[in-house]
Amino acid sequence: MSQEAQFVFNTLSFLIWGGLVMWMAAGFTMLESGSVRTKNASVICLKNVGLYSIAGMAFYLIGYNLMYVDVSGWIGSFKLFYGPSEAEIALLGGDESATEAVLENGYSVMSDWFFQMVFVATAASIVSGTLAERINLWAFFIFTLVLTGFIYPVVGAWTWGLGWLSEVGFHDFAGSTIVHSTGGWAALAGAIVLGARLGKFSKDGTARPTPPSSVPVVTLGVFTLWFGWLGFNGGSVLALGSASAATSMSVVLVNTNLAAAGGVIAAIIFVRPILGRFDLVAVLNGAIGGLVAITAAPDMVNHYWAILVGAVGAIVCTAGYRLLWSFRVDDVVGAVPAHLFAGIWGTLAVCITHNDTNLGVQLLGILTVGVFVFSISYVLWKVLDMTIGARVSKGVEQLGQDAAELGIEAYPEFVLMPEPYEDEDE
Amino acid sequence: MSQEAQFVFNTLSFLIWGGLVMWMAAGFTMLESGSVRTKNASVICLKNVGLYSIAGMAFYLIGYNLMYVDVSGWIGSFKLFYGPSEAEIALLGGDESATEAVLENGYSVMSDWFFQMVFVATAASIVSGTLAERINLWAFFIFTLVLTGFIYPVVGAWTWGLGWLSEVGFHDFAGSTIVHSTGGWAALAGAIVLGARLGKFSKDGTARPTPPSSVPVVTLGVFTLWFGWLGFNGGSVLALGSASAATSMSVVLVNTNLAAAGGVIAAIIFVRPILGRFDLVAVLNGAIGGLVAITAAPDMVNHYWAILVGAVGAIVCTAGYRLLWSFRVDDVVGAVPAHLFAGIWGTLAVCITHNDTNLGVQLLGILTVGVFVFSISYVLWKVLDMTIGARVSKGVEQLGQDAAELGIEAYPEFVLMPEPYEDEDE
Amino acid sequence: MSQEAQFVFNTLSFLIWGGLVMWMAAGFTMLESGSVRTKNASVICLKNVGLYSIAGMAFYLIGYNLMYVDVSGWIGSFKLFYGPSEAEIALLGGDESATEAVLENGYSVMSDWFFQMVFVATAASIVSGTLAERINLWAFFIFTLVLTGFIYPVVGAWTWGLGWLSEVGFHDFAGSTIVHSTGGWAALAGAIVLGARLGKFSKDGTARPTPPSSVPVVTLGVFTLWFGWLGFNGGSVLALGSASAATSMSVVLVNTNLAAAGGVIAAIIFVRPILGRFDLVAVLNGAIGGLVAITAAPDMVNHYWAILVGAVGAIVCTAGYRLLWSFRVDDVVGAVPAHLFAGIWGTLAVCITHNDTNLGVQLLGILTVGVFVFSISYVLWKVLDMTIGARVSKGVEQLGQDAAELGIEAYPEFVLMPEPYEDEDE
Repeated sequence: MSQEAQFVFNTLSFLIWGGLVMWMAAGFTMLESGSVRTKNASVICLKNVGLYSIAGMAFYLIGYNLMYVDVSGWIGSFKLFYGPSEAEIALLGGDESATEAVLENGYSVMSDWFFQMVFVATAASIVSGTLAERINLWAFFIFTLVLTGFIYPVVGAWTWGLGWLSEVGFHDFAGSTIVHSTGGWAALAGAIVLGARLGKFSKDGTARPTPPSSVPVVTLGVFTLWFGWLGFNGGSVLALGSASAATSMSVVLVNTNLAAAGGVIAAIIFVRPILGRFDLVAVLNGAIGGLVAITAAPDMVNHYWAILVGAVGAIVCTAGYRLLWSFRVDDVVGAVPAHLFAGIWGTLAVCITHNDTNLGVQLLGILTVGVFVFSISYVLWKVLDMTIGARVSKGVEQLGQDAAELGIEAYPEFVLMPEPYEDEDE
Repeated sequence: MSQEAQFVFNTLSFLIWGGLVMWMAAGFTMLESGSVRTKNASVICLKNVGLYSIAGMAFYLIGYNLMYVDVSGWIGSFKLFYGPSEAEIALLGGDESATEAVLENGYSVMSDWFFQMVFVATAASIVSGTLAERINLWAFFIFTLVLTGFIYPVVGAWTWGLGWLSEVGFHDFAGSTIVHSTGGWAALAGAIVLGARLGKFSKDGTARPTPPSSVPVVTLGVFTLWFGWLGFNGGSVLALGSASAATSMSVVLVNTNLAAAGGVIAAIIFVRPILGRFDLVAVLNGAIGGLVAITAAPDMVNHYWAILVGAVGAIVCTAGYRLLWSFRVDDVVGAVPAHLFAGIWGTLAVCITHNDTNLGVQLLGILTVGVFVFSISYVLWKVLDMTIGARVSKGVEQLGQDAAELGIEAYPEFVLMPEPYEDEDE
Repeated sequence: MSQEAQFVFNTLSFLIWGGLVMWMAAGFTMLESGSVRTKNASVICLKNVGLYSIAGMAFYLIGYNLMYVDVSGWIGSFKLFYGPSEAEIALLGGDESATEAVLENGYSVMSDWFFQMVFVATAASIVSGTLAERINLWAFFIFTLVLTGFIYPVVGAWTWGLGWLSEVGFHDFAGSTIVHSTGGWAALAGAIVLGARLGKFSKDGTARPTPPSSVPVVTLGVFTLWFGWLGFNGGSVLALGSASAATSMSVVLVNTNLAAAGGVIAAIIFVRPILGRFDLVAVLNGAIGGLVAITAAPDMVNHYWAILVGAVGAIVCTAGYRLLWSFRVDDVVGAVPAHLFAGIWGTLAVCITHNDTNLGVQLLGILTVGVFVFSISYVLWKVLDMTIGARVSKGVEQLGQDAAELGIEAYPEFVLMPEPYEDEDE
């Protein structure tokens, strides 16, 4: 195949799979908007549209350079802005002699930027779900700016930017740790600083159920994420223009799908005896848990491992959800168990399927990313809380952020049930 | 074009169009969740997430081998599991000398598997809609397992697996019969065994309308299916890496879109005089009917035939819906008329546009597939009914499967109208 | 790269990006169905499914020929139907000697048709949102037929068909004016002829808010449009099979995304001080305004310009919404400010980033398209109003078009709030 055809294939792969990952932003939005109570179903839409925009902007202004340009082991360049290479600009300007220099890069510069940008947005999407129904909008947007402009790029520099974790052999194909656990740690820190929603836990510690505003919308969100994940993992082959890359991409898509299916089936089979009934939320989170878990290594050729990794991911996710409750940590959509706990499992499970990996190194990666992201996030949330306030007032929370902060309701014409637990706050 | 570029094109085609067909699973879910009554709008989500997962698993465990590997005329191999070829595993392991053997296959092995897997899931999706609001969850999942692990693969072995129907010249480009009628026959058998929902038919046989939970969600489902169908038919060219294949794919996408548009316009024009008003459900089902009908042969170069095939498909679909009612068959979403009746029409219409086809052979294919799928499905539904029970109890049905079986409601905060027909059961 | 590989790349680009633009039809439907009041949330679905179908049919019957075939400066050919070239038909029939002639075209004929067809549907989608909740269904469908079969193709012939506006150097990369303003002018003419919805404006001219039926559905619509816009602008490179084309496409996708993000952030920052609160509708329309604005020239290599163009587009959009109100023009979803006003801004902004453009020529294009589309549309709406009636009766409007015209409700089981403003009509 000609070098130019390779270039076009590689570029196209970043663009179409990156487009699918962009579509995951809609999936997170639907999952979260359907999961919160009706009185907060609009503000979560604003948060998600906002975070996707801020993430893209921050990654353009500084994030990509910090993550990928002149990485010195710990961090990249503090240069502002990013753009096509000089050779590309010359070629686009009509100078055909620049073609060779353009082709040498293997793919167009901005196609890679686009693909990496939608990943940072994914990390930020995880946070909004956990902290829904009580977080101050400005605090959330400021946190998103730091997460996507600094925290995530630094973790990325250590790994995909070929920094120190990459050098010691840390393996994380498409980001179980780098993307999903990063988002999960940031969300966990926020959940601890913010505390639980009013009335979520009764005095004896029992978690009270909060009705989701729309179960079909949650389901649509999960299917959207599943669909987008084909691009998330498939595009992470980072190439398409060879028989080897195309074959690898096929294997990755199959494993990604089988892991999600394994997660669903595990949730159907294992949860039923425990709860005595089918649990749709466990099944949907099982799909996400399976997808997160396979993300660290979706390239094994024995596909049954993908089923196992996904199935365990689903169980980790459901068990983790209950674990959080026992610590009175209120994660509205279960994003911490799905993205952090299943992400840890997936990052460790790499050692089962990939002989060239090292359990100690995987643990080192999990821990250092965890300490870095959690501690910075915790401090940042605390600072936000002490300055502008990370949490809305009790009045706003009771009324709902939609009416109080946006002046609209998500479904203004529908008559709603009165909330049963409003006067039993802890 | 180099053989390697062809390989990458063909593989990419399976992956991106297969991804779109996966997205159809979300479309079926929305169509069905919006069509059922509010009290069953969650359980249908569980069924759809579950069936998509089970279908993928069954096709991995046994289905693909039954359908495509060493087909002896009637059935393929009973070997378990499927995976990349030895040459591919060698290449992925770094052995470049395996490239030639990999390229000889024309596309990566698992890209084809992925594309075929989403087809079997489509067939299973058809069943869940027809039998909504009354089917026992375990019975549904067990039926799905047999349908996707055995019934569909056998039909597939006869045809796309190059078995006996293929040898006599049966023509079904992307599966009007193989996918859609197979799903439709299985659904019809289930609807007969299960019987109608409580109160669906009054004593004089009149069908009572059951309000859809959400018309916009139904519409979203139809658009999603339409979008995904571009991949369903486009990918069924089974190649992209040549001028001929790319040209054919373009023709297929145009015909697919025109047939759906023809179905919509036919439903607008023909149904209005009959009912005296516009009928959105007929229009939406008209789009599906048009899409199913064109699926048997979307590759004619005179595009007006596609409009005709689609328009008749829509009318067949609407007429068939009323026909089912006259037999007191209760098909909640109209999947049998849309997928079975329009599928039969489409499989016959092949003879209008393709000179090398034979009406007798097309009829033979329709009939043998029908007898095989319907009879096995009927027996299986009966066995399920006599053992674990195919239908939920009257109490569960009246309360709704969401609350009774899942312990949740689809829209728990919205105040609902009391059901008007609950005490008029037949 | 071989000529055949180029051909396949170019064709594939039209098909996949065209598929994404088709998906925008679902985005418009959700945006509009979520924005109207519950009593009209079904009929808008019918309008959108219908318009997409009619647009495709009209473009097949006559539109494409008027726009692209033998354009004589002002208009193309009045020939009916369109189809593959003779060489393509020969190749599809097995005549390999036709390959060379097929390849000469650079892409398959019908892939281009498909891509252009989804653009005309986009223009028609803009109209349905503005005129929602009061327009007669037949009048809307007839207008759509003329818009997509004649008005849009003529504008297209002047520009992309290489007619007179193209010859004088008018620059509109993917259609800020050609697609979006055309739709916007047609919608504005309709809004003036139809007048405002009952009760929209009080006697002193104040616009009364009308509650959207579902804010999450609106948000889903906007994300869907954003996703689809990657195809809208990316595919408008009109090629993929070279390093230059692939690089250009990457730049276009990045700018498209940054402009939308810039629009969102501008709406968050600038609208809050004015209204004293966050405004989700302004944010969502800001994304659309940013996307429309960048569409005229998304190919600059300094990406910060895209942010600026998008941000100003968002502000133009929000300001324009209020401007329309001051003229008592009732645009239900704000499509005129988003698509027309931001489209004008984008078409002018081309001069900032592209040295080879001319402000006078851009103004000439904006004005001539505006005069042509607005005047024909105005006359057509008037004729429709005087004959079959462009507007539904007062009774139908008060009851809602869903119940009155379709005999269904969008959410029949949900209890609705009584409308507060029904008896205060102007």
